[in-house]
Amino acid sequence: MPIARVLSIGDELLFGRTVDTNATHLCRLLGDQGMLVDRVEQVGDGEAAIVSALRRACRGAALVVCTGGLGPTDDDRTRHALARLGAVALEERPAAWRAIRACWGRLRPGMAVPEVNRRQALFPCGAESLANDRGTAPGLLMRLPSGCWVACLPGVPHEMVAMADRLARRLPRLVPGLRRPVVAEAWFAGIGESTAQELLAGLFSEGDPTVGITVSELGHITLRVVGSAAPVRRRLAELRQRVEPYLLPHPDLAASLLGACAQRGWTLAAAESCTAGHLAARLGAVPGASRCWRMGVVAYQPMAKRSLLAVPGPLIRRHGLVSAAVAEAMAAGMRRTARADLALATTGLAGPTGEAGIPVGTVWLAAATAAGVVSRQVRIFGGRERVQRRAAAAALQLGWEVVNGMLPPGRTSTH
Amino acid sequence: MPIARVLSIGDELLFGRTVDTNATHLCRLLGDQGMLVDRVEQVGDGEAAIVSALRRACRGAALVVCTGGLGPTDDDRTRHALARLGAVALEERPAAWRAIRACWGRLRPGMAVPEVNRRQALFPCGAESLANDRGTAPGLLMRLPSGCWVACLPGVPHEMVAMADRLARRLPRLVPGLRRPVVAEAWFAGIGESTAQELLAGLFSEGDPTVGITVSELGHITLRVVGSAAPVRRRLAELRQRVEPYLLPHPDLAASLLGACAQRGWTLAAAESCTAGHLAARLGAVPGASRCWRMGVVAYQPMAKRSLLAVPGPLIRRHGLVSAAVAEAMAAGMRRTARADLALATTGLAGPTGEAGIPVGTVWLAAATAAGVVSRQVRIFGGRERVQRRAAAAALQLGWEVVNGMLPPGRTSTH
Repeated sequence: MPIARVLSIGDELLFGRTVDTNATHLCRLLGDQGMLVDRVEQVGDGEAAIVSALRRACRGAALVVCTGGLGPTDDDRTRHALARLGAVALEERPAAWRAIRACWGRLRPGMAVPEVNRRQALFPCGAESLANDRGTAPGLLMRLPSGCWVACLPGVPHEMVAMADRLARRLPRLVPGLRRPVVAEAWFAGIGESTAQELLAGLFSEGDPTVGITVSELGHITLRVVGSAAPVRRRLAELRQRVEPYLLPHPDLAASLLGACAQRGWTLAAAESCTAGHLAARLGAVPGASRCWRMGVVAYQPMAKRSLLAVPGPLIRRHGLVSAAVAEAMAAGMRRTARADLALATTGLAGPTGEAGIPVGTVWLAAATAAGVVSRQVRIFGGRERVQRRAAAAALQLGWEVVNGMLPPGRTSTH
Repeated sequence: MPIARVLSIGDELLFGRTVDTNATHLCRLLGDQGMLVDRVEQVGDGEAAIVSALRRACRGAALVVCTGGLGPTDDDRTRHALARLGAVALEERPAAWRAIRACWGRLRPGMAVPEVNRRQALFPCGAESLANDRGTAPGLLMRLPSGCWVACLPGVPHEMVAMADRLARRLPRLVPGLRRPVVAEAWFAGIGESTAQELLAGLFSEGDPTVGITVSELGHITLRVVGSAAPVRRRLAELRQRVEPYLLPHPDLAASLLGACAQRGWTLAAAESCTAGHLAARLGAVPGASRCWRMGVVAYQPMAKRSLLAVPGPLIRRHGLVSAAVAEAMAAGMRRTARADLALATTGLAGPTGEAGIPVGTVWLAAATAAGVVSRQVRIFGGRERVQRRAAAAALQLGWEVVNGMLPPGRTSTH
């Protein structure tokens, strides 16, 4: 497989203030096109550092994609570094400068283009301009004497993504012998990674096919099979069979749950305490969620649990806020308020401080349907945000099991 | 400054399925200790690839921190790679094996430790074991003949974070001449990056002090000043003065807003449509949010807007869901329902599909107080998730301006 490398440029990446999601996106895109990405590098804004990183990346590679350093200010040095690498001069291109002014006029009507943006019309001689329809910085594409292609894209993620898509479509013409591998995935949830490893023992392999497993903080596990058509198809079927009861139709628990609700004609509502909106945000992230999803309530204070969800005050006092009884009452109350078929609820301690006798990370989840209420306790390790995120995933998982009849109906508590 | 490098190991990083947040965390930690992180690399699980990456990273560095490849399976090769790099043998340490069994017993009471985990007790001769109190994999710390220290930590983020903190505290003893720089930050919001660049012109510099600017998708901009005490203090004061009206007390809009509410004894509530829980999740992510934050409602369907927020049906039909009138009615209704001092509301089109005459990314925000209702329209570019995230940030920004009396009271619409 032809080798590709990714280079992310920017001091902010090395200061540890910005997570490099651009590289992740590019790795996926290039891998799906049949390139083998064998390493990724992040370097700072300095021109010398960029030149050496580019030199390292180009050695033995068919393609290097870099992001960042194409802005209008003096510390944006990617153009200069590429010119040095290719030992060519920089030239200003009138057509690029016209496109920059047109883009600026579209994005900020009535404002004059600052003169500094003229730098974005500089190109190493022989480099091709890559159009950017979401920002002022055009990208660059240049072939080095070694035969390696270097593509430079802006670091702003939503500009980069659109340009990378267009670049990916051109790859078969740029890189001879590129063969798009067959990539198949299966997704499941409801068991941990170690149980999954045991169930799937003997089916992991390198070569044709290659099988990879990825555990997501969003609550699902992905199996990815890459290779040629027949081996991929066979292996995927074997893998799916082993985890059959836990398979998801979609690589996202929220989308799987909403899809299952839609199939059954069910409506859905969510009442949250400790997850504080994370559950609603997961559901709302799914395009078309409004078909099934009625409403969500973040009843952060006891008063809200009483007024919006009709959770009785004495029940809260008797069992405590973090209890099966309160989670079940929240779910039942939410179901009534929303007149929904299924209501989910969460209550727990996200931290940072715990309460007497209840450790941080203790969360009760409940699901109410016409058949009754089901509840479950989970214990999550980590900081406040992780507890909230994982508890939201666990609530989606409970909903998925309930919609699919995987839990006995009626009032059940799992501890 | 002594040079540190970060190396993240794992095929999943190169497949583009996993974002490398470990490297970001380590960069920040090492920079705060006075190390200069000049590059970061991600490589796959292969032993040969790890050895060459380690070799590249160690050249000229005082410290290399790598994460990943310490699991119990056969494709976890970091221990082996480190032994090869140091040209030493691997030895099994009985004490480490005892600690692994004890940890397993604590995390999964009653389950036997799989024999494969014994691999995690293997150490290159001469390497020190770094305790891991959140998982089975101990870390490694070894000094190469060149004098460069190599620390290997597990790839599981919440295990890595705790171990990295302990390592950071030992750095002054490991790296002679390490001087913790003075790091100061200022945060502001309410203006874009280009306006900020203009206001701050002439105050950016490299050297002592170094000034960096980072724009966060969470809605604020961070100025970071690094150097020695007096120049940092002086520059920070100059920077703060230029953006004085926009300064935040905290590097997070939600925490700033909740803090300002707490100061005034105000309670807060949020009614969301297009942001679908993102606004609640931002508020709920702040420790101690429950002091001021009453409740949130995700009124995703018109029915929920009517029943929970008392938005009149005719108003919705007359103005449309995405309108100043509906945003204002949602905020006013939320304020009444929650009996809160301040209520925020969002309504808009997050996409992927737009509606007749209203482009995707159009969002109306409103804030209701005893003095009246204020609303504002924003237009956000990008995918569904970005629109939701940025609109939640814009709502927090509106709330911040209202609490601080930066907007005229009464019914105002800004278009």
